[in-house]
Amino acid sequence: MEGRRRLSRSVRKREGKTMIHPVRPISIDDIEQARERIAGTVLRTPLVRIDTGDKREIYLKLENLQPTNAYKIRGAANAVAKLSDEERARGVWTISAGNAGQGVAYAARAFGIPSTVVAIETAPQTKLDRMRALGATIVPVSYDDAWVAAETHQFPGLESTFVHPFDNHDFIAGHGTMGLEILEDLPGVKTVICAIGGGGLITGVGSAIKGKRLNVRVLGAEPETAAPYALSLREGGPRKFPDWQASFVDGAGGKSVTERMWQRMRPVTDGAITVTLDQTRDAMRLIAERSRTIAEGAGALALAAALTEEAREGPIVCVVSGGNIDLAKFAELVAG
Amino acid sequence: MEGRRRLSRSVRKREGKTMIHPVRPISIDDIEQARERIAGTVLRTPLVRIDTGDKREIYLKLENLQPTNAYKIRGAANAVAKLSDEERARGVWTISAGNAGQGVAYAARAFGIPSTVVAIETAPQTKLDRMRALGATIVPVSYDDAWVAAETHQFPGLESTFVHPFDNHDFIAGHGTMGLEILEDLPGVKTVICAIGGGGLITGVGSAIKGKRLNVRVLGAEPETAAPYALSLREGGPRKFPDWQASFVDGAGGKSVTERMWQRMRPVTDGAITVTLDQTRDAMRLIAERSRTIAEGAGALALAAALTEEAREGPIVCVVSGGNIDLAKFAELVAG
Repeated sequence: MEGRRRLSRSVRKREGKTMIHPVRPISIDDIEQARERIAGTVLRTPLVRIDTGDKREIYLKLENLQPTNAYKIRGAANAVAKLSDEERARGVWTISAGNAGQGVAYAARAFGIPSTVVAIETAPQTKLDRMRALGATIVPVSYDDAWVAAETHQFPGLESTFVHPFDNHDFIAGHGTMGLEILEDLPGVKTVICAIGGGGLITGVGSAIKGKRLNVRVLGAEPETAAPYALSLREGGPRKFPDWQASFVDGAGGKSVTERMWQRMRPVTDGAITVTLDQTRDAMRLIAERSRTIAEGAGALALAAALTEEAREGPIVCVVSGGNIDLAKFAELVAG
Repeated sequence: MEGRRRLSRSVRKREGKTMIHPVRPISIDDIEQARERIAGTVLRTPLVRIDTGDKREIYLKLENLQPTNAYKIRGAANAVAKLSDEERARGVWTISAGNAGQGVAYAARAFGIPSTVVAIETAPQTKLDRMRALGATIVPVSYDDAWVAAETHQFPGLESTFVHPFDNHDFIAGHGTMGLEILEDLPGVKTVICAIGGGGLITGVGSAIKGKRLNVRVLGAEPETAAPYALSLREGGPRKFPDWQASFVDGAGGKSVTERMWQRMRPVTDGAITVTLDQTRDAMRLIAERSRTIAEGAGALALAAALTEEAREGPIVCVVSGGNIDLAKFAELVAG
């Protein structure tokens, strides 16, 4: 942890090269401009009520219906569109467990520029295949190496323009567009729950929600195997999660909350709920049974959290962040 | 066949009791009024492009996302809302392979009235369970008995108000609302394909499309095991399909086209494509892989038809009519 922090500081000194801008709040203006910028690329996803068999009023924001079947396309489309012509001409690269890579590759293809994805090598085959199908060059790396690249904003040998998958103002502003849609479709919403991986999703949605309606609660959801934000909130600062474990929830759950993401997330969130892997699988099954859509593990975290006691009163909106899971694995988890 | 026709005629004579109105065209006004009437009950479903791996421009109208996970809720909500207070007070009944029953039960529950479903006993468990969960009383019958009830508009012992699942002006007008949404979302559409079971879906959508844009083609899709409309078109009149077989495409594919449904469908359709069960299963898998939603067999028929040579030029819109299939069966079909 200390080693990483020192590396991160030294990178910041060489600002001319790596261009890590200071963190600043995401404004409603940023998000509304992003919305216009990405309107032709992303789907305005439906908000559907899920029948939980009782009186609870829970809605799903179905980001698994996006062209890349994950919300990341919102941020990627905005971030790539906001680059200068010169920056875009060099091509783009990003770091990804699968969904950000698809988003950036999709946006790059739309602009006719090359893309490279530093991809966590244990990502599901369906995610790797689809990044390649979108024209991305894949550089497979270990989870730890990917995380170092995410903290330092650089990777050896890559000279194209870096688009950070979560620690990037424009990427996050793109995700904020979801928050505007939620408030339009359900003005009476009381709580919005988002899965936390890097923290970009909840920062974007939280910025839109809090910017418009301060009294709506914004909660994170993390799996018990990777819950650094809940720990960070308990201890009052960014923390590394001890005993991190890989699981089928491959699209969320980080090893740590970085200092910069802590600065971004903390002001626009009200708490975090930790759920078990069993609760997550049950939520995947409920989404399949009742909404007839396929959610990946990370995509079901928010619903799993909404079904706990901690979530309290509704209406609750759960962002179903993505649906990119190998079908055989999905079948095994929900129909087994 | 002759026996059935005679029964049907004799029923029509007793009009004071069974009230079978003559067939008349569904107007754009009927459909626009239906749209206002059902706006609070149904989902305005998204139209999503499906990546078929080539240049074909094919879109899915995702009716499997409706609260009952099938388009029938549109017609049911309109038909039940249009009943007189006196008719509604008696409760309602319908005939169903599963999806119409859920639609009528859902609409009846919203009005606080009882519902009964004469249900084909081989319907998937998921459909029967959900009709019961919505408060419907189930009367299980054979496929043939259900079809006689559909032709004669009556069933022994049921005295509540009958809401026909396809041969009903208001039911069909409700389905027409899909056509308005398709034209709004994709003004350049060239072809719209709908599965045919009883014929209500394609009559509704076709009436909206032809009423607004006569040059858009409207095609039916039927499985090879149950393709009476393609046969009827070839022979120039309503026909019974010989060698009808049950299959996993339980939500579409009738044993015959009735005289009344022939009168309804023929003016608003341009043809019908027959697909194999293998093509249907492949389409289910493609929908799962690319759109991350669960389609039942009938729900994948339109895409299966769109992928044949007969479908010709795009953009093509395929109505994914429903997603009510047992999850274990779904897993077996798409991930096996």
